[in-house]
Amino acid sequence: MANKFETIAKDFPILSRRVNSEPLLYLDNAATSQTPNQVLERISDFYQTSNANVHRGVYTLANEATEAYEQVREKVAAFIHAPNAKSIVYTRSTTESLNLIASSFGDLVVNQDDEILITIMEHHSNLIPWQQLAKRTHAKLRYVMLTDDQTLDLQDFRKKLNEHTKIVSVAQTSNVLGVTNPIKLIAKLAHEKHAYVVVDAAQSVAHQKIDVQDLNVDFLAFSGHKMLGPTGIGVLFGKPELLKVMPPIQFGGEMIENVTQTQAKWQQAPWKFEAGTPNIGGVIGLGAAIDYLKAIGMPWIEATERELIERLLPELEQVAGLTIYGPQNVVQHNGIVAFNLKNLHPHDVATGLDMLGVEVRAGHHCAQPLMTTLGVEATVRASLSFYNSLTDMDRFVYAVKMVKEFFDRES
Amino acid sequence: MANKFETIAKDFPILSRRVNSEPLLYLDNAATSQTPNQVLERISDFYQTSNANVHRGVYTLANEATEAYEQVREKVAAFIHAPNAKSIVYTRSTTESLNLIASSFGDLVVNQDDEILITIMEHHSNLIPWQQLAKRTHAKLRYVMLTDDQTLDLQDFRKKLNEHTKIVSVAQTSNVLGVTNPIKLIAKLAHEKHAYVVVDAAQSVAHQKIDVQDLNVDFLAFSGHKMLGPTGIGVLFGKPELLKVMPPIQFGGEMIENVTQTQAKWQQAPWKFEAGTPNIGGVIGLGAAIDYLKAIGMPWIEATERELIERLLPELEQVAGLTIYGPQNVVQHNGIVAFNLKNLHPHDVATGLDMLGVEVRAGHHCAQPLMTTLGVEATVRASLSFYNSLTDMDRFVYAVKMVKEFFDRES
Repeated sequence: MANKFETIAKDFPILSRRVNSEPLLYLDNAATSQTPNQVLERISDFYQTSNANVHRGVYTLANEATEAYEQVREKVAAFIHAPNAKSIVYTRSTTESLNLIASSFGDLVVNQDDEILITIMEHHSNLIPWQQLAKRTHAKLRYVMLTDDQTLDLQDFRKKLNEHTKIVSVAQTSNVLGVTNPIKLIAKLAHEKHAYVVVDAAQSVAHQKIDVQDLNVDFLAFSGHKMLGPTGIGVLFGKPELLKVMPPIQFGGEMIENVTQTQAKWQQAPWKFEAGTPNIGGVIGLGAAIDYLKAIGMPWIEATERELIERLLPELEQVAGLTIYGPQNVVQHNGIVAFNLKNLHPHDVATGLDMLGVEVRAGHHCAQPLMTTLGVEATVRASLSFYNSLTDMDRFVYAVKMVKEFFDRES
Repeated sequence: MANKFETIAKDFPILSRRVNSEPLLYLDNAATSQTPNQVLERISDFYQTSNANVHRGVYTLANEATEAYEQVREKVAAFIHAPNAKSIVYTRSTTESLNLIASSFGDLVVNQDDEILITIMEHHSNLIPWQQLAKRTHAKLRYVMLTDDQTLDLQDFRKKLNEHTKIVSVAQTSNVLGVTNPIKLIAKLAHEKHAYVVVDAAQSVAHQKIDVQDLNVDFLAFSGHKMLGPTGIGVLFGKPELLKVMPPIQFGGEMIENVTQTQAKWQQAPWKFEAGTPNIGGVIGLGAAIDYLKAIGMPWIEATERELIERLLPELEQVAGLTIYGPQNVVQHNGIVAFNLKNLHPHDVATGLDMLGVEVRAGHHCAQPLMTTLGVEATVRASLSFYNSLTDMDRFVYAVKMVKEFFDRES
């Protein structure tokens, strides 16, 4: 494994840089992952050899570009075991994917006596679109709350799920609590009430194998930039029969069959949702990122990250005055660790860590209703990736202790 | 100039490739421009040195990324002489920019007795969003038609512009006819009737200097990938006082000030329109593209492309049975040349040219109502860039003649 880790580190030149004269320790992988050379090279190579606009050309370059663009769709479908490539819509990001579902599908199926059920741990991107849908349709937006150990309260879910529930939308993995929710069970229960199931997989897609058919979810959203790909490219998986009935919400080239002065007829899905020139280079990069993840292997990634968190969490729990959010039991906890140090503002902690070369996030993590529930305004958050090492974990705990000592001395 | 051309050619490695054993002659610049090494290197360099998510971090890497991201906004503002960076919204593409105006601003100001005035030469991306807005609001969508020489009929514009006109939306440069419309005059006339002016600058931004304050337009949209930048990044310029009152249409992280279970409050413009992780790498690439264009110089680009079209158009007009659309007078014609060869399907012509290494588009160019007006289903289209040479123009005309001869012999 040491060798594999060294090989991997070479693929990410940024990991060798220094921050404030210290070697970079990047622990904000939940915000964005780093991008291996293989992805950057594939993108550059595309622009240097086959760059053309897709779908609209009859010439060699345009055919090459279109083929590359559509082959990645097959690759994405295979990666999450979607039934076919037509169930894969390219978007800008998870956020756009979720907005597309809420605006197009939401407006189609949600009426004023309906309920939309989400959880209190949702990222704003899986919350505000539903809040807005509820406002537009006068439907009721409800929240599944947490158990005492800060995991999803499945009893509360069963209680709030009822025959009025039209849509259940839930993160597979929280971007704060370090928990992964039982999507397959949630989908089964929701479907029994004839509700549709939307999954925000932004925080899970790079960390575990996803099988949308086994989970039996109706929609699933994720972003390229959290799975080693470039920014600006996201994915929406939708069951083909649902994508088929959904109206497009952006209009322009590529997405039409024909247009007159007064009427327009749409292409079939997924293309009807991809108005205008898409992020072709981003798609190419996403394909390379999937190749990279597959070459390393999702089981290896999962095992490696498990080893990291099992090293980190018990050590971190030993730091006096440090509160970890989410489950305290490491078995339930994945590689996203939100915490606070007693009497210290999380921004000060993050700034202190930055002085030591350690890059973590501090803030509300785009989950303000969750922060309110946790009784805090903000937390520090460290989030791991397979390219972090066990030594990184030790160094991180050591840095936290140093920051704590520094501020203890100051006060 | 020969030297400058040779230097430039080295920046675009794709131009040295072969297609069907012939040296590539890329003449589909209106669909997408090619991307110089400087842009690709800047993007890779960003990912390899400063990659982090923007706006939400307090650490060094995130600050570097945010600064780079926001500095490009200043650069874009300066490039089109916008009053300030806050008037620049990052989108995916021209298409998304136009959809954003139609959905957000359109729904805000257009009512059922109003009229929306566009032109018959609009690309579908500046047509269908207004068609949909008209359907939603029961406003009337009207089209300015063409003169006999296939330029915009300004008399028709004056006739159709009236006190009911709420929005005038027009391409600065047609993607088919090779004409550039008198935007400053159009804006002046429209403002006299208290209409708002939207400009689709997708086809002009890389080919002439744009000054949004001098033109006095309310909105202007363009794409990175048509101005040497990467795909997946577009720009919406909007007058600050208009952006201020427009509601966002996508919701999520980055665009909020605060969120509760039932309410959300937006950030100010432009950030309220940029929900979720944006295309950070794309923005960096756009900045590099602007640097490249500025280093070469927009006046030089304009002069070079003028020289090219003045060589090309008269030669092309000599080909028997060849019809050029748009003005026949080269002084009025810019570097986009749509044409047909008598009795030949444009797809066959493009395929024939492709056999000779010449890449041009054939089809309706996402402008079906214009095609109907021209009395055709499709055309061939060659579109130039400053990296094309005079020799390329001669080679292109020769190739057109060869294709024609080939098919003449066949029949």
